[in-house]
This record gives sequence, structure tokens and C-alpha cells, in this order.
Amino acid sequence: MLPAEVIRAKRDGRRLSEGAIREFVEGFVEGRVPDYQMAAFCMAVLFRGMNDAETQALTEAMLHSGEVLDLSELPGVKVDKHSTGGVGDKVSLALAPMAAACGVVVPMISGRGLGHTGGTLDKLEAIPGFEVRKSVAEFRRILRETGACLIGQTDSLAPADRRLYALRDVTATVESIPLIASSIMSKKLAEGIDALVLDVKVGSGAFMKSVEDAERLARTLCRIGQGMGKRVVALLTGMDEPLGRAVGNALEVKEAVELLRGSGPEDLSLLTFELCAEMLVLAGRAKDLEEGRGRAREAVKSGRAFEKLLQIARAQGADSSALEDLSRLPKGKGTREVLSPQEGVVLSIEAEALGLAAVALGAGRSRADEAVDHGVGLVVNRKVGERVRPGDSLCTLHFGDRGKETPDEVASRVLAAYAVGEGEPHPRPLLLGRMA
Amino acid sequence: MLPAEVIRAKRDGRRLSEGAIREFVEGFVEGRVPDYQMAAFCMAVLFRGMNDAETQALTEAMLHSGEVLDLSELPGVKVDKHSTGGVGDKVSLALAPMAAACGVVVPMISGRGLGHTGGTLDKLEAIPGFEVRKSVAEFRRILRETGACLIGQTDSLAPADRRLYALRDVTATVESIPLIASSIMSKKLAEGIDALVLDVKVGSGAFMKSVEDAERLARTLCRIGQGMGKRVVALLTGMDEPLGRAVGNALEVKEAVELLRGSGPEDLSLLTFELCAEMLVLAGRAKDLEEGRGRAREAVKSGRAFEKLLQIARAQGADSSALEDLSRLPKGKGTREVLSPQEGVVLSIEAEALGLAAVALGAGRSRADEAVDHGVGLVVNRKVGERVRPGDSLCTLHFGDRGKETPDEVASRVLAAYAVGEGEPHPRPLLLGRMA
Repeated sequence: MLPAEVIRAKRDGRRLSEGAIREFVEGFVEGRVPDYQMAAFCMAVLFRGMNDAETQALTEAMLHSGEVLDLSELPGVKVDKHSTGGVGDKVSLALAPMAAACGVVVPMISGRGLGHTGGTLDKLEAIPGFEVRKSVAEFRRILRETGACLIGQTDSLAPADRRLYALRDVTATVESIPLIASSIMSKKLAEGIDALVLDVKVGSGAFMKSVEDAERLARTLCRIGQGMGKRVVALLTGMDEPLGRAVGNALEVKEAVELLRGSGPEDLSLLTFELCAEMLVLAGRAKDLEEGRGRAREAVKSGRAFEKLLQIARAQGADSSALEDLSRLPKGKGTREVLSPQEGVVLSIEAEALGLAAVALGAGRSRADEAVDHGVGLVVNRKVGERVRPGDSLCTLHFGDRGKETPDEVASRVLAAYAVGEGEPHPRPLLLGRMA
Repeated sequence: MLPAEVIRAKRDGRRLSEGAIREFVEGFVEGRVPDYQMAAFCMAVLFRGMNDAETQALTEAMLHSGEVLDLSELPGVKVDKHSTGGVGDKVSLALAPMAAACGVVVPMISGRGLGHTGGTLDKLEAIPGFEVRKSVAEFRRILRETGACLIGQTDSLAPADRRLYALRDVTATVESIPLIASSIMSKKLAEGIDALVLDVKVGSGAFMKSVEDAERLARTLCRIGQGMGKRVVALLTGMDEPLGRAVGNALEVKEAVELLRGSGPEDLSLLTFELCAEMLVLAGRAKDLEEGRGRAREAVKSGRAFEKLLQIARAQGADSSALEDLSRLPKGKGTREVLSPQEGVVLSIEAEALGLAAVALGAGRSRADEAVDHGVGLVVNRKVGERVRPGDSLCTLHFGDRGKETPDEVASRVLAAYAVGEGEPHPRPLLLGRMA
């Protein structure tokens, strides 16, 4: 099939054969299918969708555009976790050492923040010296020595996805479940994992705004992974308000450390222990989730989880003393409180708006080539359901001198993101569903 | 608005402002909007459509990407005709001289054949010496001297359309009414015309397969032209079987000459006289269509129409004696009859299949850079509604030595395109509707 015929077939709602999809992606990688044909194809997929077999074929074609790691020489079951992205989502920072402390091998390849969502790599780089660019050989060595390694995508893993994602970003073709799913899974399957836990976020601060869309994405992700012989579990979790209280890189590292020391915010702890329990069951380190939760809590209580974080950080070049003395993490130049003008209950917080407020302070990027300021961000002092009086601080801004907006401007954004009034908020539960 | 935001807005079904469309097209022309963004945009337009104001803005942006001819110094009303393309459509060859013989100034910029449809330029080039590449200065001079000039698109007129059309062709984004309409009208409005007659084809051999789609296209075309202050009339005409009997360049020239000498096939004559009458009314050369038809017939009967063709041909460098002695036009190497295996009535002829049969003989091109063989093609001996006996010739193939298929292979195609049997065919009338 000629490339234009593949595009036409998808445009007209026809099912593409595995061979047609493979040839099209190979052509893209090898330069025979130019960007403009891929862009038209992605837009046609966005409108017409893809069935499971097509999505699987697309994923495999992208996976095989580069190296697929084989970690089978490492003892133990290799399990990763992937989140579809939200605001204040620092789970990976605590989860990787927690699971590794329980005997799971965690090869974790993460991304950077873009738009309103943060990225694990930026958070890790808030730890002085932490090196997220590692060769595959170093990745293997650190995994073998510590049981976990957290790095960025390398040029050799799923290169088609990197080019395709950049193209989708500028052609308004990001928001397509088969394209999102194949992008995620081609990267994850290249890591050499045996099993995967997915945290599919739903809500105003997530890419998936409705439970239905999130369920469709979760189901698609599970089927792709299972089709490739991997064990995959997906949790659907709420992302209407930020997860935990900290938004911004060093602030989130601090909160992750607090969690590993046993004093993290309730929602963050609940989710992290739940994801860890899933990883332990998949790895054969717990017979069921109940046992998995217990082991995860025990790893925290005993200090082994925090010790594992220090060990990983040192293996990746960091000055781990900054994790023991959190005052040595990067800081902003000053703070500014955002005060409630009225009495009432916090009825809702728009997570996306808070994510963008953190970006405006310099904690994130609106273009892929921007630098981030690791010390800045915000801390949510009042979450949904909490009472406030006039003059109470809703939120503390940590600002620097490289922000895109002044603290006052950011304060206005934050205030606008809060709904305070009388009434009974009905936030959806954090754990919305589970799929396997 | 950033280019990606324009694409997103259209993707989500939002109406684009005139300014956003103009900026996007200007960006495309100037290289700030790369082909991949334009391709994604076209696919979004294909799915979401455009309203009249958006289509008008797109047309104007493409029109103003290049030179817009001003022919106001030429006396008389300038009227062109445009057909959306079919099989055996040699109308322009006869119509331009016919209308010019009646006092209309006809600045006609035509295209080449692509796919199953022929192109006026290829047909003109079947006349030895006929030169379709003329500078704007020569175009003006010939128009002034003869009243008509038939040339190809120049680099200076609507250059955005040429680039966009090439891009749409390879990204499966041709079949969109706003994109088709803006492509046609941006070129036509650049010619310096005062009025335009459109021949919108409907049927198996046309791009528009249904009357509804053809009506939508015709309405869109009329509104764009009228929005730019031009008088526009559209005829909806049937294209289920080939128009006339000849398909192929020199064969069609011959048939057009026969028409101008008063002996053309009935359907071709009817349509050409009707379109000429419309042009005469628009040009103020006839008070109504009845009078226009009379004047057109009189121009043929008196020999003035044919004489005008000779005059135009000479002005454009041709050896006009080949039009007086048609045996001097290019010819194939031989002929092969396609015989009916059975008795019955011709119930239908798939025009598109016959167009592709002519392409297989070498009369057309499947890629834009292919050469055509001017002497080859086919002549339809039995049209819909005519009786045949076993062994009667349905069609005569004129083959050369550069065909893509053998005469036998092409004969099988032709046979498959004919439905012969007992019954009463109900072909739709040639003139299906009129819109102004």
C-alpha cells in the first residue's frame, strides 16, 4: 500500500492491516514517509480511531524502530510504573525506592514536564548532582547494584516515538487514545520489563477529563502490554486537585522524602502504597494486595525505603546528603502567601490552573527547550473539603527571579483556581477503578 | 493564533476567523507553517468542513498568494468556464472559440489530466505546435487579438494553491468541498475574469458521486465568486458515461472540431451550446439563454466558431492545418475493436473505468510527471440506451507502443465497464440543475 492509500483508508474509517501499519511506520523512520504524510495520518487516526489489533501493530512498529533492552540476565521480576501525568505527581520518586526495597527490580525510564504537568526527570534533577542521562550499560549496572534506576529516554529506545511525539505536539494530534497508548507502551516495552503498573489519571488536571476516556485508555494500554506477553495492571485515579500539597521540583522531592520517612500527605501515601502493592504482587513479592500494602508500609517504617532512595541517588551521582538535610535542596528567593478573601469550605481546586501557576513561576516549561527553576513552585495549604477563614493562606508560592510572571500575577491565577464557599464538596475518591 | 492552535480549533469543530486563516496561509507561503502542519490542517478541514466565510477567507488568502491579473484594459466582459472534470470532457476546446466568436472575451487557464480525468492542456497539445505556456504579456496580447487564449497555470497565479494541491494529493485530503472550492476559485479569480460559468459534474465518472455533494460544491463555488463581486452560474451535469464518444487527446480534438463544424455528438453539442448561452448572457451578448443558444448555433453554422478556433491555434503557435485536415493529428499505431459478446441494450458504462482504460493506453497519467501519448485513446461506439448484437463493436481502442497495458488487457477493462442486457436504462438527464 502506498502511504497516501494508508492515509485514505484510515480517513475513510477502514481497518488497516498489521503489515500496512508496519510499513508506514518503517517508512517514517527511514524517511520514505515524510512528516506531512504522518501528520495527515495522525489526524485521520484522531478522528477515526484504531481497533486493538491496529494499535498493537502501531506500538510494535514503534517499539522495533530502536533497541529493545533485554534485562533477563538480571535476577528478579522487572516491574515499572507509568503515570499518564498530573499536577503534583511525585509518586515515582518514592515508589521506585519503596518497591526496590521490597525486592522488585525497577527499570524506570521517565519524561520531562511539559505544559501543566511536571516530569519525574525534572524533579530528580532538583537533587544536586542527580544524573538522569545514563548509558544502557550504566543503567544495567545500577539496576543490578541497587534494584532501581531512574533515567531519561535514550536515543536508542523507540526513536520513532520521539519523532512522532514532537510532530503530534505541533499538529494538534496529541489527544488520540491509540496514539497516546502506542506512544506510552512502545517506550515502556523497550525497557526490558516483565510487568507494568499504570496510573491513569482522570480529571481536570489530567489529559483524560472523563472516566470513560480514561477507561478506554487504560483498557487499550492493558491490551497492548498483554498482547506482548507482559503482565499489566491499570489503576484509574482522580486528578481533580493536585496530588499531595507540593507542586514544583525541589518541593516535590521534599514531599516524596517525607512520605518515605512516614509523614507524607494522606492522598499521596495512599496512592503510592497502592501502586507499590500492585508492583509487589506482579513481581511475586506479595501474594495479594493486602500483603503488598503491608510490605510497602513496613519498608517505610523500617527506614529501608528511604535508605534505598539514598542508595539510588548516590549510584546516579547525587549528593545524597541533600535528601537527609532537605534545607540543602534548591530554594526560591522568597515566598508569598495567597490568602483566602472569604470564609467557607474549599469546594474545588482546578489542578490544571495550579500546574500552570507553577509553570509561570518557572517550575515547568511551555516549550521543550526551556530551562526550569528547580527551587520554585507552590504548596497547597488548603485542599478540597478543608475550611478556611478570611486571611487564611490557601497556598504558598515559592518564587525565584526567573519566573515568567510576578508573584502577584501568579497569586491571581491561584486564587481563580480555588472555589471557596458554603456547601458540601463531593470530590471523587482517589482510587476510581482497577483494570487488569 | 499559533499554527497548532489553528489546527486544534478546526479539529475541534470551531469556526476560524478570517484573520486566522489568512495568517495560516501566509505562513504556509512564507515557510513559517511547514507542510506537516498544513497537512494536519487539511485533514481536520476534511472532517470538520468550513462555513462560507471560512471558505471565502481561504480562497482570498490563496488568491493573494500571487499575482491577480487585471484585464480591465481589454474591452468587453471577460468570462471563463470551469469544469470539475470528467471523462471525454472536451467542451473547452469548442466552447472557448464558440463564445469568442460571439464577442465574449475568454481568458481560460486550464489544467492537465490526472487520474481518470483528462485535461484541456493535454488535449490542446495534441494539436501540432500548440503552445500552452505563455507569459502574462502574451496572454494579454492573444486575448486582445483573438478574444480567447487557452494556457496553463503560470507560476505567478495562486502559487499557494499549486503547492497545496500537490500536498493534498499525497495526504488523502483532496475530497473536501471547501478545499476543492477554494482551489478552483483562487485560480479562476486570479485570471482577471468578470464572470464564470461552472460545469459541476455528477456521477460515476466525476469527483462528486452524488447530486447532493455536487450541489454543495456548486453552491460553495457560486458564493465564493459572488462574495468577490463576480457573476457566477453553475450547471450540474451528468457524468455517468463519457461525454461524447472520444476519450483521448487527439481523438477529443477531432470530436471538438466536428462539433464546431456542426456534426458533434448530441450530448456534447447540447452541453456546449448550453454553457455558451450562459457565457453570452453573463457577457451581455444575449438577453436570455434562448437567445444565447441561438447565437451559439449560428456561430457554428456560419463557420465563425471553427474559424475562431483556427485563429486561436495559430496565435498560440499551432499548425492550424491539422485542424482542417484531421488526418494530420497524432494517431496511434493501430486499433482494436472491443466486441459485445451478447445481445441487448447498453444499460450503463462506468465512465471512470473508461477513463482509466484510456490512461492504460497512455492517454493520461497516473503520476504528475508522466508523459502522455497524444494519439491514443478510445472511441465509444455504443452509448447507454443503444442496442447491440453479439459481435458488434462497443468501443474502438486506439493503441500506441507506450501503453502501460496491452490492447487485450485494456479491452478487458472496457468490457467490464459495460453492462449489456435486457431492460430499460434510465440514465439521468445530462442537464441536472442550474444554480446562480
